[in-house]
Amino acid sequence: MSGDETPEDRVSLADVEDARDRIADVVHRTPLDTSSTFAELSGAASVGLKLENTQRTGSFKIRGAYNRMAQLSDDEREAGVIASSAGNHAQGVALAGELLGIETTIVVPEVTPAAKIEATRGYGAAVVIEGEIYERSYEYALERAGETGETFVHPFDDAAIIAGQGTIGLELLEQYPDLDTVLVAIGGGGLVSGIGTVLKAHDPAIRVIGVQPEGAFHAKPSLEADEIRELEDVDTIAEGIADTRLLETTFANAREVVDDVVAVSDREIAAAVALLAERAKTVAESAGAAPLAAALSEDLDLADEHVAVVVSGGNVNLTEHAELTRTGLYERGRYAEARLALAGWPTRIGDVIEVIEAEGAELDVLERARRGAGDEPNRVPVTVGLEGSGPEQLAGVLEAISELEGVSVAESDLE
Amino acid sequence: MSGDETPEDRVSLADVEDARDRIADVVHRTPLDTSSTFAELSGAASVGLKLENTQRTGSFKIRGAYNRMAQLSDDEREAGVIASSAGNHAQGVALAGELLGIETTIVVPEVTPAAKIEATRGYGAAVVIEGEIYERSYEYALERAGETGETFVHPFDDAAIIAGQGTIGLELLEQYPDLDTVLVAIGGGGLVSGIGTVLKAHDPAIRVIGVQPEGAFHAKPSLEADEIRELEDVDTIAEGIADTRLLETTFANAREVVDDVVAVSDREIAAAVALLAERAKTVAESAGAAPLAAALSEDLDLADEHVAVVVSGGNVNLTEHAELTRTGLYERGRYAEARLALAGWPTRIGDVIEVIEAEGAELDVLERARRGAGDEPNRVPVTVGLEGSGPEQLAGVLEAISELEGVSVAESDLE
Repeated sequence: MSGDETPEDRVSLADVEDARDRIADVVHRTPLDTSSTFAELSGAASVGLKLENTQRTGSFKIRGAYNRMAQLSDDEREAGVIASSAGNHAQGVALAGELLGIETTIVVPEVTPAAKIEATRGYGAAVVIEGEIYERSYEYALERAGETGETFVHPFDDAAIIAGQGTIGLELLEQYPDLDTVLVAIGGGGLVSGIGTVLKAHDPAIRVIGVQPEGAFHAKPSLEADEIRELEDVDTIAEGIADTRLLETTFANAREVVDDVVAVSDREIAAAVALLAERAKTVAESAGAAPLAAALSEDLDLADEHVAVVVSGGNVNLTEHAELTRTGLYERGRYAEARLALAGWPTRIGDVIEVIEAEGAELDVLERARRGAGDEPNRVPVTVGLEGSGPEQLAGVLEAISELEGVSVAESDLE
Repeated sequence: MSGDETPEDRVSLADVEDARDRIADVVHRTPLDTSSTFAELSGAASVGLKLENTQRTGSFKIRGAYNRMAQLSDDEREAGVIASSAGNHAQGVALAGELLGIETTIVVPEVTPAAKIEATRGYGAAVVIEGEIYERSYEYALERAGETGETFVHPFDDAAIIAGQGTIGLELLEQYPDLDTVLVAIGGGGLVSGIGTVLKAHDPAIRVIGVQPEGAFHAKPSLEADEIRELEDVDTIAEGIADTRLLETTFANAREVVDDVVAVSDREIAAAVALLAERAKTVAESAGAAPLAAALSEDLDLADEHVAVVVSGGNVNLTEHAELTRTGLYERGRYAEARLALAGWPTRIGDVIEVIEAEGAELDVLERARRGAGDEPNRVPVTVGLEGSGPEQLAGVLEAISELEGVSVAESDLE
C-alpha cells in the first residue's frame, strides 16, 4: 500500500451517481457508435466508440469540471475559480464557470496558440499568459489561488473531478450492457479512475485497460510497483495525455480499478486518427485515438469480446489533423511518396499520370524536385504523392511507372 | 401539372412507415447532434445535425437500397440486382445485397478510384468497369439488365428508394419534436422527396428547403417552371449531388413537398466541411456539408427557428478532406499564405518564427521559394502558411513580420 493513499481518496459509485445528477442538464450524453469495421480489424465481437469528442467543449473535461464547481459554496463561487491548462481542461472549466455564473481564470503557458486562447475566452474565462512551460503556469495558478482566495481546480487529481468523468461509465453500462472490456487513455489518470470505479462496482469481471503513448508510459510501472513512478520527460504527439505521473488521488483509485496498461506508438496513434476519420467519420485528437490504436494492436487479445473504446476528445487544429491522417495513411500502406527520374521534362509526365489513373490510385501531389546528390545529371527528378487502397496496389503502380520508357523510380518509401 | 406525373409516383407516409419496418434491423438510427455553435452562427434557435455520414456505408443510401431490394420476389432475388454508381449508391446496393443474400453487380466508370471499387467489393458486390463517364455506365447497366433479367436499382428515381430515404424524416420527428425547418441537399431529389413527404404529412408548416451547389442548380428552375428543367453540364466539388436534373418520380414528389431551393458556392461548402470537422468533429463529404453551408449563408433567414441539417454522407478521401478543410479555413480568414522577402537566408527566419509564436498563430509550412519576376534580386523569397484564429489576428501577424528589420511581406492572400 502506498503511503499517500487514504480511504477518502477513493471515489465511490454513489459519488459518480451524485455527479450524474449534478451534470445531467448541462452535459451531452454522447453517442456510442458501434462499428463493424473496427470489430473486424480487432477481432473483437463488437467495438463501440464512446464519442466524447462530440461532448461540449470537444472533450470529456466538462464533466469533471462542472461536477467539481457545482459543489462550491456561495462564498467560494463569489471568490472565483482558477486553473492552469493549455488544453481541454481550460475549456471545461471555462464553460462550467459560464454555466454556473462563476468567474474563471485560466493560466496558460506562453506558447499556447491564439485559437485555443480564444476558444477559452469564448466561454467567458479570463486568460492569463504566464510561464514558459506548463509547470510554471501551474505553479503560478496555485500561488495566485493562495493569495486571492480563488479555488484552484486541478485537471485530474481531485475526487470530484474523477467522479464527474466517471459518469461516462454509467452511460456505457446503459448503452452497452454486454460490455467486456473498456479501453481508456491515461494521462494523469482521472478519466480511467472514474470510469473504472463505475464498471468495477457493476461487475468486477469487466476489464479496464489503460492506454498510454510509448513516450509517456508511467502508469504501468507505477501500478506494478504499487507506488507512483515518475518519468523524467515525455515525448509523444498525444499532448492531451503527455503527463509524467499519476498523482495521489488518481493513483489511489487507479490501483484499485485498472487491470492493465498498454503502450501504443505515435505511428499507431496516427493510424488510428486516420481510421477514425475514414471509417467512423469522426475527428479525434491524438490522445482520443490512442485507445483505438490499442484495440487494433496485436498486443491486446480482444477475441470475441464486446469492447468500448473511449474517444476522449477531438480538439486538434485542422492542419495538424491533416498531417496526422497523412501519417496514418503511410502507416497503413495507403500512401506513398516516390522520387521519379524522367528522361525529359515535362514530356513523360503525361505517361506517368495515365498509368496512375489506369491503376486506380490517386495522384495527390506532383513536384519537379531540385536535383540531389544521388540524381543522374541527365534525368529530371520529380516527386509524386500517391493515395491508394493498400501497399500491394501502390507497389503495382510504382512497378507500372518504372516500366515506362524514359521513366524510372529512383526511390520510394514503400517497403 | 407535369405530363409525367401520375398518382402512383407519389410516395405516402404509409410507404415510409412500411420502409422503416423493413430496414429497422439493418440500418443505424443515426444521431442528431445539436450544436450551440451552429445555432449562434446561423441565428437559429437551435441547429441539429442529422449525421447520416455515420450511417452504414457512410451515407444514407443504404436506406433506400435496402427498402427497394427487400421487396424483390424470390425470382427477382435469384436473378440478381445491377446498379450503376461511382459513389454512395454503389456501397448501399452492395451492402443491401450482402444482407439480403442477393448477388449484386455495380457498373462503375473507368476513372473510379480503386479505393471506392474495393469498398464496394468489400460488401460482396461484383464490380464491372464500363464507360468513360457515368452516363455510359448507366446505359450499360440498363442494357445488361434487359438481357440478363437482373433488376436495375436506380439511385433515386424510384418510389421504394424515396420511401427508404424518408425514414430519416421519421427519425427527425422523434429526435427533434420542435422542428421548424429542414435543410436537405438535392442531387436527383430522392432524399428531399422522402424526408419532405414525412414532414409535410406530419405538419405542412414545417419548411423543407432543398440545397444545391451553384454549379448544379436545377431543382429551383424546375419547381418554379413546374416542369423538369435540365442543365447542360455541372461544375461543383460536391460530386454526390452533381446531377443535371430531377427525374419523373422525384419531380412528382419534390414539387409537392419542397418549399424552396437555395444555392451555395463551392467555397461556402468547403467552409462548412471545415466547420463540421472543427466544431462538430465530424467528417462530411462536400454534398453532406452543403446544407450547413446554406444554414450559415445570409440568404436564408432562420431566426429563432429549430433547424435540422441533414449531413447526408462522409465518403471522402482523407487527402481530399484535408484540402477541403484548408480551403474552408481560407474562406473563414483562418489561414493565410504570404510571400516574404528576406535580406538574408536563413538568418532572418528565426526572427519571423519568433513573431509568429508571440502573436499566437501556427506556422503550418515554410518554404524557400524560387525567385519570381516580381522578387527583388537581393532578397530571398520565402513562403509561409499560417493558421490562426481569424483575419484580424493573421493581419496582425503579417504586420508584425513586416516591421522586422530585413524582412518584408511581398504578397499575401489576406484582404
